Amino acid sequence: MNTSEARNLGLDLVGRNRSVLVGSIDSEGYPNIKGMFNLRHDGLKTFLFSTNTSSRHVGHFVADPRACLYFVDFGRVEGLQLTGKMEACQDPELKQLLWFDGCEKYYPLGVTDPDYAVLRFTAERGNYYHGLMNVAFDVP
Amino acid sequence: MNTSEARNLGLDLVGRNRSVLVGSIDSEGYPNIKGMFNLRHDGLKTFLFSTNTSSRHVGHFVADPRACLYFVDFGRVEGLQLTGKMEACQDPELKQLLWFDGCEKYYPLGVTDPDYAVLRFTAERGNYYHGLMNVAFDVP
Repeated sequence: MNTSEARNLGLDLVGRNRSVLVGSIDSEGYPNIKGMFNLRHDGLKTFLFSTNTSSRHVGHFVADPRACLYFVDFGRVEGLQLTGKMEACQDPELKQLLWFDGCEKYYPLGVTDPDYAVLRFTAERGNYYHGLMNVAFDVP
Repeated sequence: MNTSEARNLGLDLVGRNRSVLVGSIDSEGYPNIKGMFNLRHDGLKTFLFSTNTSSRHVGHFVADPRACLYFVDFGRVEGLQLTGKMEACQDPELKQLLWFDGCEKYYPLGVTDPDYAVLRFTAERGNYYHGLMNVAFDVP
C-alpha cells in the first residue's frame, strides 16, 4: 500500500463513519478524547464540528490547538488518524451552514446563541492502517 | 446523577464495550488516539492491554505516561473518559495472563517475544456523560 492508496482508503473510511473521535490536550497536559459527529469535510484536509462554546474541550483548543481525529472500524481492524490544528470559530455563515433541526436542544437561543460554536480542524499529517499494514502520509 | 451513580454507570459502559480508545501524547506534543481491546480490568482503576513493544504509542508512553481511555456508545449519547498514567511492562506473568490463541499472528516468537508488551493503565480521574448530564469524579 503506497501513500496515495492510504489516502484514498482513509477517505473512504471517513465517508463510512459519521462519528469520529477528537483528541485534545487538557490544562494538565493529559490527552483527552471526545466523540463527535463529522458534519462537513473537505477531503482529508478540513473538518467542521459544532459544539458548546462553554464545553471543556473548546477551552483546550484555545489554550493549545494541537488536535487529532480518529476514524475507526474495529470489525475490519481499520483506522485513520489525522493530526493537525483545531480552531474555534464564531463565523455566522459557518454556524448557519452547520445548523440543523434539533440543534436548539443544545443551543436554546438558536443559531446566534453565543454558546453555539463551530470547531474547524485542519489536518497536517495522516496515518492509515488496515490489518497489519500501516502507512503514514502528509496532508498537503 | 451523583458521582457514585456516574462511577456505576461508567463501569456498566466498560462492561458492554470490549473496544476502547486510548489517548497518548506524541513526540511533537500532539494528542494521538488508537483503538485497542480492553483485555482485563479491575473496576475503573486499572486496565491491561497487549501491544507491540515497537509500536509508536508505546514510545509515547515511555516518554510521557499521561494517557486517557475513552469508552463510547454513540447511539445512546453516552461516554466515559478516564485520565491517568500508562506504563509498558515486560512482566512474564502479565504477558502469560493476556496471551490468547491468535496472538502469534502479532508476536511470532510467542509469549516470550520481546516485541510483545503489556500496557497497564492506572486511572486518576473520570468523567461520565449520558445525554446532557455530565459528571466528573476521582478514581481513588
